[in-house]
Amino acid sequence: MSESFVIWGDVCHSLGPDKLECVQGAYLVCEDCFCSGLFSELPERYAGLPVEDCRGLLVLPGLTDLHVHAAQFAYRGTGMDWELLEWLERCAFPEESRFADTDYAARAYARFVEDMRRGPNTRACVFASAHTEATLLLMDMLEASGLACMVGRVSMDRDAPEGLRERDAQWAAAETRHWLELCRGRYERTQPIITPRFIPSCSDALLEALGGIRREYGLPVQSHLSENRSEVELVRRLQPEAGFYGAAYDRYGLFGGEGCRTVMAHCVLSEAEELELIRARGVYIAHCPASNMNVSSGIAPVRRFLDMGLHTGLGSDVAGGTLTSIFRAMADAIQVSKLRWRLVDDGLRALTAPEAFYLGTAGGGELFNTGSFEPGREFDAIVLDEGRYAPERPGGLPERLERCIYLSDDRDIVRKYVRGRRLF
Amino acid sequence: MSESFVIWGDVCHSLGPDKLECVQGAYLVCEDCFCSGLFSELPERYAGLPVEDCRGLLVLPGLTDLHVHAAQFAYRGTGMDWELLEWLERCAFPEESRFADTDYAARAYARFVEDMRRGPNTRACVFASAHTEATLLLMDMLEASGLACMVGRVSMDRDAPEGLRERDAQWAAAETRHWLELCRGRYERTQPIITPRFIPSCSDALLEALGGIRREYGLPVQSHLSENRSEVELVRRLQPEAGFYGAAYDRYGLFGGEGCRTVMAHCVLSEAEELELIRARGVYIAHCPASNMNVSSGIAPVRRFLDMGLHTGLGSDVAGGTLTSIFRAMADAIQVSKLRWRLVDDGLRALTAPEAFYLGTAGGGELFNTGSFEPGREFDAIVLDEGRYAPERPGGLPERLERCIYLSDDRDIVRKYVRGRRLF
Repeated sequence: MSESFVIWGDVCHSLGPDKLECVQGAYLVCEDCFCSGLFSELPERYAGLPVEDCRGLLVLPGLTDLHVHAAQFAYRGTGMDWELLEWLERCAFPEESRFADTDYAARAYARFVEDMRRGPNTRACVFASAHTEATLLLMDMLEASGLACMVGRVSMDRDAPEGLRERDAQWAAAETRHWLELCRGRYERTQPIITPRFIPSCSDALLEALGGIRREYGLPVQSHLSENRSEVELVRRLQPEAGFYGAAYDRYGLFGGEGCRTVMAHCVLSEAEELELIRARGVYIAHCPASNMNVSSGIAPVRRFLDMGLHTGLGSDVAGGTLTSIFRAMADAIQVSKLRWRLVDDGLRALTAPEAFYLGTAGGGELFNTGSFEPGREFDAIVLDEGRYAPERPGGLPERLERCIYLSDDRDIVRKYVRGRRLF
Repeated sequence: MSESFVIWGDVCHSLGPDKLECVQGAYLVCEDCFCSGLFSELPERYAGLPVEDCRGLLVLPGLTDLHVHAAQFAYRGTGMDWELLEWLERCAFPEESRFADTDYAARAYARFVEDMRRGPNTRACVFASAHTEATLLLMDMLEASGLACMVGRVSMDRDAPEGLRERDAQWAAAETRHWLELCRGRYERTQPIITPRFIPSCSDALLEALGGIRREYGLPVQSHLSENRSEVELVRRLQPEAGFYGAAYDRYGLFGGEGCRTVMAHCVLSEAEELELIRARGVYIAHCPASNMNVSSGIAPVRRFLDMGLHTGLGSDVAGGTLTSIFRAMADAIQVSKLRWRLVDDGLRALTAPEAFYLGTAGGGELFNTGSFEPGREFDAIVLDEGRYAPERPGGLPERLERCIYLSDDRDIVRKYVRGRRLF
């Protein structure tokens, strides 16, 4: 399928944390689902391509949500008065248990997928639940939506209620293989990702088995890391020999390194040694500011991640967070970084709007080879009509971009492209 | 004009910070613009009133925004990478200067008023700009919208650019009187409020004059207090004899007390002595969590305000904040209170959803004698259709309310009443 065309509009994208490129009335070229570049004048060689006229509209790369729980979408915005471990027990686990019922899963996932399709995100690393059938259903729906996501059947064999906990590590491994076999050849855009829930929910035997499967299938990995004080203490008790939380994954080959793209959500409490390992292994950090407020975890030192050159992107962490839009995560990331600077450590400067934009686009998008309009990246774009909030002050492009970060919602998104294909 | 009717729906309101009342399928009676009570069964004596059928919908008191700058609405969501004093100079002052142009003011205020009319707030304490004509225009528009607001022509005679700064205190006093005379008898729902911008912008002579006018006209007062570190230091230099920031208003009779309803925004850095004076004078605190993040001020100790029994409500502080919805301010207030508990002082418990709801309704609304459905309060209500996010989990009323705090936007508000009059 050939997807080649030109978008003519006001374009912003990031070439790095401090490299925002803005071009008014730019020509953005997509050839065969990949970006061929951004031009002030359309080069002669593209003269034959159809031009989509988006003059006066804001054209941005699609946003990447590096961490979202599809099976928690139905109860977002509730149960927020609990802290992490209580919240899991009272809200997350009971809701996820319902996904054993495939009819319920179909209804609940349909709403999640429609929300994602209409919103600004084009890519996501998604947690489903421990149910194979429901997870496949979610993957089918995401594939049909046109989005390009990684989706994980969640593995957990301890410290969870009956309907969610897998019988034992052996059974869990067999079921994971079964799921992966069912995925084989089934999707064009949707990819399975190995998903141990987090160390407290996974026995050593399960982690070992998942590490083996990951290597065998050459799959990416996603999980949670150093999120909340009580959780970090629990992991220290459960895996004393690991030394620190990240090492507990690393022991089993579930923490990045050659051929193992890995996303770890949170890293609020990661210390020097853990951050060094994250760098050494090329692990992606999913910074989830809303969730870190909602379950009282704290504020991750994102400035440090950037200074160290760590792969960093943003996660909505629904339903620890409440909205899937990564624009909201950008605004939240800026806001909490200011509080961290003011209240915790004035050695770490607050994030700027261009930096937050980088995190939500090129930073996280790199995992999927998208998120900017550099030639060679997969072509994901969203087009925004700022009419709802802009008329009295058109402003320059960086100002318009900043306003979108703080004010836009799905009503403003008038076109959306994933891998060169227009979704609406 | 008689406005008497019954709303039949699922009702939540606050009778105090920890007293949330929720009644499913309740009858809420409005008689002559006042609330007559909330009933599980409709009392015989109201049998003759028309019943508005809102079964299955969520019926809440109108929200009160205790602090919002109408003249900053056009640039909300931009310039957020500056701290308070720089932000005033680079963003707020230049924009407010434009309101000397009445045509511009008409266009810009029309958008602010329409946003407020469509949103969940029914009351607001509004800062206009230093321009009399534009301020009257704003008041005319708010009056026509059906909202019931207090609006202040902003007084400032120093440390501001030419077009905003008043010539001198005498001129400013004369112009304030002129404005008040023009307001006389002009409005049914819209009330002028004395509005010294903040201490750094007001000479002693101006404060003295405003104190006199306030007494003479018997008007309320609004201003800013102890928001940002650099601002507090500046005030200390400007008014060394006051001892603390609040006392600088109090010297001139602009800080509550008998017959002087006063709202002070922020109080992020208020210390014990200032808080005691706030209590003694019955001053209302407008807690503005989003703005306090955006201009890097910090986190106000709202739990302390509640423990001390201070009058406390919420402010959007647009354009220090970005959205006018006080639902968003509730969510922000909860989130930052969790960070404060985690990072600054674990002696002050985080706010719960019912507490934040109290702040945004009965807490701030008390200034206007509204904000709850207690008999005798002016009848303001909003009706929400949760269809956009609810179907898979109807939930109990407290859960539905919490979800609205985090997820609702103006799309969900299907009816709105102010003083018993239906706006839409």
